[in-house]
Amino acid sequence: MAAGRIGLLAIAVCCAGLAASTAGAGARAARPAPVIPPGEQAPVDIVYADAAARLIGAAMTSDHAYTRLSELCDGIGNRLSGSEALERAVQWAAQSMRADGADRVVLQPAMVTHWVRGEESAVMVEPRVERLAMLGLGRSVATPPGGITADVLVVGSFDELKALPNEAIRGKIVLWDVPFTTYGETVRYRSDGAKRAGARGAVASLVRSVGPVSLRTPHTGNMGAYVDSIPKIPAAAVSIEDATMIRRLTSRGQRVRVKLEMNAQTLPNTLSHNVIGEIRGRERPDEIVLVGGHLDSWDVGAGAHDDGGGCIISMEVLRLMKQLGLRPRRTVRAVLWTNEENGLKGAEAYRDSAGPTVEKHVAALETDGGVERPAGFGFKINRADVDSVDTQRTARALVQAKQISKLLTGLGADEVNDSGGGADIGPLMKRGVPGVSHHTVGEHYFDWHHTQSDMLDKVDPIELRKNVAAVAVLVYVLADMPGRLGDAASHPGK
Amino acid sequence: MAAGRIGLLAIAVCCAGLAASTAGAGARAARPAPVIPPGEQAPVDIVYADAAARLIGAAMTSDHAYTRLSELCDGIGNRLSGSEALERAVQWAAQSMRADGADRVVLQPAMVTHWVRGEESAVMVEPRVERLAMLGLGRSVATPPGGITADVLVVGSFDELKALPNEAIRGKIVLWDVPFTTYGETVRYRSDGAKRAGARGAVASLVRSVGPVSLRTPHTGNMGAYVDSIPKIPAAAVSIEDATMIRRLTSRGQRVRVKLEMNAQTLPNTLSHNVIGEIRGRERPDEIVLVGGHLDSWDVGAGAHDDGGGCIISMEVLRLMKQLGLRPRRTVRAVLWTNEENGLKGAEAYRDSAGPTVEKHVAALETDGGVERPAGFGFKINRADVDSVDTQRTARALVQAKQISKLLTGLGADEVNDSGGGADIGPLMKRGVPGVSHHTVGEHYFDWHHTQSDMLDKVDPIELRKNVAAVAVLVYVLADMPGRLGDAASHPGK
Repeated sequence: MAAGRIGLLAIAVCCAGLAASTAGAGARAARPAPVIPPGEQAPVDIVYADAAARLIGAAMTSDHAYTRLSELCDGIGNRLSGSEALERAVQWAAQSMRADGADRVVLQPAMVTHWVRGEESAVMVEPRVERLAMLGLGRSVATPPGGITADVLVVGSFDELKALPNEAIRGKIVLWDVPFTTYGETVRYRSDGAKRAGARGAVASLVRSVGPVSLRTPHTGNMGAYVDSIPKIPAAAVSIEDATMIRRLTSRGQRVRVKLEMNAQTLPNTLSHNVIGEIRGRERPDEIVLVGGHLDSWDVGAGAHDDGGGCIISMEVLRLMKQLGLRPRRTVRAVLWTNEENGLKGAEAYRDSAGPTVEKHVAALETDGGVERPAGFGFKINRADVDSVDTQRTARALVQAKQISKLLTGLGADEVNDSGGGADIGPLMKRGVPGVSHHTVGEHYFDWHHTQSDMLDKVDPIELRKNVAAVAVLVYVLADMPGRLGDAASHPGK
Repeated sequence: MAAGRIGLLAIAVCCAGLAASTAGAGARAARPAPVIPPGEQAPVDIVYADAAARLIGAAMTSDHAYTRLSELCDGIGNRLSGSEALERAVQWAAQSMRADGADRVVLQPAMVTHWVRGEESAVMVEPRVERLAMLGLGRSVATPPGGITADVLVVGSFDELKALPNEAIRGKIVLWDVPFTTYGETVRYRSDGAKRAGARGAVASLVRSVGPVSLRTPHTGNMGAYVDSIPKIPAAAVSIEDATMIRRLTSRGQRVRVKLEMNAQTLPNTLSHNVIGEIRGRERPDEIVLVGGHLDSWDVGAGAHDDGGGCIISMEVLRLMKQLGLRPRRTVRAVLWTNEENGLKGAEAYRDSAGPTVEKHVAALETDGGVERPAGFGFKINRADVDSVDTQRTARALVQAKQISKLLTGLGADEVNDSGGGADIGPLMKRGVPGVSHHTVGEHYFDWHHTQSDMLDKVDPIELRKNVAAVAVLVYVLADMPGRLGDAASHPGK
């Protein structure tokens, strides 16, 4: 739903339903309480002004988030599911949350994908020799020993391949040279390219990296699962430079041959863990506001924006509340998921272990869009166990969120829309848990995404602080306000 | 000299000195001749309006330059001195200029540097294992077999190293982590880093890549020549990501150890060639306006901006004049230099072979700043055999150039300043030849410079056409106008 449609729904929602006295028990009265006429309830942005100011002030004056992100990215580095580094990150995160004073920290086991890249290369061998900048795609099979050497067929769309006769495709390496538009549009070629090419007799699939700019920068990422009815051919990404070079050469009528060698292996699933930390709610500890990011990353770069930043934000939300003595009505739970990138086994394990307590999840916020300048949040509520949006509840949540977001104006993080969602909260949202996604401006996110360049130098320490502050305020208010996000009425003190 | 100072010199220069009838013999009267009052001479921008329009029109309506650049970059690829690829490029360029109808095409031999990179790697081995994105620097020696493994000492300036005691440096790998400001400022660490570090007992020198942005992008380039009195230690560039990561780790008190392995070799100088093509002047064929770029590149990427574009521009200047039947008063000579990147042996060979005819060079234009959106030209004239600028001649040249540049306004290429110069025209300028440098906006040039990413996708075909047009007009006018650039008076028909 577009933000502009919200007004049309004309739903009378009481965002407030809050007495001025309900702000967190630990909140010190740093400023005079606002004067509310008798019989009226204070709006949420007034009720929580003091708590928000303290959270924002604390976040903006601390380098703690950046230091933690450096420990993770510089000290541990990238951390693909199945790697020792990921389990080091699991231990580090749990220990860090304990050190921060979380009320409870647990490791939640999950058996995760264990794909290993191995040695790999792609070399153009005709019309001349040039080593291509490439990265194999997650899940890909290996090439046969000695690699695959074949002519390259360049196509620009699924339709273009469809229109070709089998004999034009058979035995070829198909190169999907599709310029980046949006991630959603373009990633289809990374996901489905190998299946489509394999089904037509191609021997390998190369995809132009899914990103808008390149300094000879290959982007890895998951390919869609193989299907048994279709030959399983190896798949890799090449840089924009290489894809466009090959297209130019073939356009001039030149035969281009590439030798692809990949030793990728999919090993048996291996034990990993979600890391879960909590600040227990003071009134309704069984009700949960979840905030999370994923701890795993691809096996390149350091997973700074994807999604080290989201993990640190989630950890900092707990730490700041603890530090400021802000204990909200409900429990705030930080979840650092494992295996988001290539399996979602962490998200499934969390949902499975939650069982019937899923309905106690008042909201689940996922931060997995990097930590550039914060923009705001998206909200969406599905009907439980029905694959459709609950438009009424979503609309009410948006009105409530807009009121809360007035507290985030100074951070530039007050844009609210209905695009809530995320890979790790997906299983919870399918069961009706209100989904919240953290948004940044995303100016460069896809320049770095899944590349060797997603390292800490790309993170602006100031913007990181602002993101921490914005998420902390939203999570705190969602956890403390009397009514549940999206509910029709809220009853103070209920 | 700043552009603003020119007016203060108040030198009365006649830029025109041209009768309206002197435009190139082959020029077709496409528009009516301007009306010039009797006894006056037409300004140069009026005299050459028709020729300029034809050159610009032809350049802007032809894809020839881009196709040629694709042949060079995609078809031949990078071409370091000593490589077979460079000699293929030499033959291709000569053949192309002959096909374009140049009056004379010659290969001018030069014995050039033959440095070979070989296998190389840098791996951080403590506090954890991470392969660094690196490129060895040109001229570097190899490491001993088995490589060099040592602690890294991070410094941010020459002064910072100077202030350290020898025992803090001895046995270390020095990392020069200097943020990019300007190329001239920052490149000093690439040029001098290994000597400074070697003189203090370091065992290797790493430099943060000289460029403003990075997607884990190492930039190679030449290091300064070793000096016999200082231990010769290997030198390489690492990406910004790697340099800043190591700095953060050491700042936290962590010991960082790197294993550097390089098999670089400097082989005996080898035969290469400048490629020289000409359109012979119709009146003063012994006088020469030179336009050139360098055909060699580093051994990464495809040398598209550095300096394939400059070569193509130089070739197109000849081709367009030939195509349009524009034969100027003087000879126009395109020179594609060899060995600019790591030896300048091509530039020296040209100067040496020119001998006394150096003084017949009316101007030497170098285009070696990429082919982004054109901006204009720089002009500088030195006193022959004296290492100082001839300010009077330079000022006169600038006034003349400003008049000519009115023809380039529509291309946005009419900025004129006194920053003329270039590596390949340097030896000629030292002998008093007026130097002209071709300028673009240079917004991204140093993002790509000396990296794997300097490939054809970075070249905007439209901007390439505009650069060709701008250089062609300037060169044609310099070659045809009666007076010599920078001379005090020009005598029509002299």
